[in-house]
Amino acid sequence: MTSVSIVAGGAGFVGANLVPELLARDRVVVVVDNYCRGAVGNLGAVQGHSNLHLVEADLSVRDRVHELFETSRALGAIDEVWHFAANSDIPAGVLDSDVDFKDTFQTTFELLRAMRDFKVGTMHFASSSAVYGDMGEQRLHEAIGPLLPISNYGAMKLASEAQASAAAESFLTRVNLFRFPNVVGVPATHGVILDFVNKLAKDPSVLEVLGDGTQQKAYLHVSDLVQAMLLVAGRVSEKKVELVNIGPTDSGATVRRIAELVVARVAPGARISYGQGNRGWIGDVPKFNYSTHRIQSFGWRPTLDSEQAVARAIDEIAAQQGF
Amino acid sequence: MTSVSIVAGGAGFVGANLVPELLARDRVVVVVDNYCRGAVGNLGAVQGHSNLHLVEADLSVRDRVHELFETSRALGAIDEVWHFAANSDIPAGVLDSDVDFKDTFQTTFELLRAMRDFKVGTMHFASSSAVYGDMGEQRLHEAIGPLLPISNYGAMKLASEAQASAAAESFLTRVNLFRFPNVVGVPATHGVILDFVNKLAKDPSVLEVLGDGTQQKAYLHVSDLVQAMLLVAGRVSEKKVELVNIGPTDSGATVRRIAELVVARVAPGARISYGQGNRGWIGDVPKFNYSTHRIQSFGWRPTLDSEQAVARAIDEIAAQQGF
Repeated sequence: MTSVSIVAGGAGFVGANLVPELLARDRVVVVVDNYCRGAVGNLGAVQGHSNLHLVEADLSVRDRVHELFETSRALGAIDEVWHFAANSDIPAGVLDSDVDFKDTFQTTFELLRAMRDFKVGTMHFASSSAVYGDMGEQRLHEAIGPLLPISNYGAMKLASEAQASAAAESFLTRVNLFRFPNVVGVPATHGVILDFVNKLAKDPSVLEVLGDGTQQKAYLHVSDLVQAMLLVAGRVSEKKVELVNIGPTDSGATVRRIAELVVARVAPGARISYGQGNRGWIGDVPKFNYSTHRIQSFGWRPTLDSEQAVARAIDEIAAQQGF
Repeated sequence: MTSVSIVAGGAGFVGANLVPELLARDRVVVVVDNYCRGAVGNLGAVQGHSNLHLVEADLSVRDRVHELFETSRALGAIDEVWHFAANSDIPAGVLDSDVDFKDTFQTTFELLRAMRDFKVGTMHFASSSAVYGDMGEQRLHEAIGPLLPISNYGAMKLASEAQASAAAESFLTRVNLFRFPNVVGVPATHGVILDFVNKLAKDPSVLEVLGDGTQQKAYLHVSDLVQAMLLVAGRVSEKKVELVNIGPTDSGATVRRIAELVVARVAPGARISYGQGNRGWIGDVPKFNYSTHRIQSFGWRPTLDSEQAVARAIDEIAAQQGF
């Protein structure tokens, strides 16, 4: 019988990069998205693929999720759900807690309920390094605590991990929880690089940067992320719940460096104007010391470090935006 | 101006033990409960106190929470919320994930929203050792991870911690997160001791025990818990979020020992019939190695160890049930 993958948020940035890989493995893929930030066009070359099915639904609504699973079951045996659906505008979620409650957590909650009802065994969940909150200079490995997120987005990602973990004890056969930092590449729907490119498109003479530019973060290219997730998903393991950080092995790139690279690519000679302090907005974390020891122990290495990932993404995003 | 404490779930087991202490500190206390398991009678001697106000409300409903804060504001300056409202039937929450979603998490979510709207600065939250899941023989201290709860109750307690933590970054001045294990005492509304007493009330000849009786847990007497929470609540600290385990310093009491003590108190000579395995139900954790180093560093010590707490609670609960 045909194996069906449901990809929640599959028309968004990360999901759209995974879908071609699943199709290449001869799986039937049901992409479900609310098309809030996702777009069919993000799926690029695979849009007309005969094994690709598109569903528009708000996954925080129980009846819509039930319909999705009914539709998917008619196509074959649903054996996994990839869950990327979430609010991706962290500041918006800080302003209104309903945003992450509904889009980041309730989507997980309802998908898990449907997986129980439809006896689907495996969930692969896109969590986030935001669950770690602000741990200062501490090395962020999977066994660190306490987890005190500083954004509603991080809080609802942690809530989702927890609910999936409880589901693994009760009815799932396998849950993979992927915690990743900033991921870059195309199709870009948000993020610092796209912001900078768009600002320079409006005014090529100056780039205004929130904060003093010293903020440093780990960046992972989406192509490396997808390969990492597929590696973990394909691993045979006795553990019902696998939780891994996925990220580069370096200590990250600064906002200043990103600004300089974007200017060089898009508007050479533009002046860069920095603000005050090393935080852009509430919920943003100033520095980052990310451990990927665990996934490295599975044999994974990123092909690009933070600065290489940023540089490639700048090229891709600039092209996407017409530069 | 009068200082007002809102005590959510204040007519339940732990809340009802805290309320007299707050009244004794000359605070106006608004007890809010859905009276699902809580009961006005639980408040005992303070029921007629002039500074005690009772509100019946489902705290998962936004409009009800708003009304609660309006009512409370009319009585003085609301400066703290003690949050004990939650589902307390863990197996019921495993059977239907809506139970803990609504009663354990959504209550927290809506209380935090109202605290933002009404500019209330401090939340004291009753979390749970259930957030740790099943970590085998590892010592459970606050800095351990990853947290992979095995019940929906544990998951939604962790979700609540996370949401409160994000609120502290954004608009609260102080959040205290208390993680405690099984708490015993009166008024008992649920738990292993009450179950055993009730079973023996029905049939004094035999006590049927789920599992083989080797399951060992840490038990804290509610009187020790209340003093611990008040100590942390009263501490001056620069930290916006304080997270502490509260529990006995011993390694716990076995189900077998509890069964023997209940039989001796309630139905001497009754036969004890054990089941198989060392788990009672999904979501139950077989063993427990609980670190209270952090709260001990604040100068706190429990007055009763696990077995003493259980023994005192058996006396109290037996009396409550008419023995």
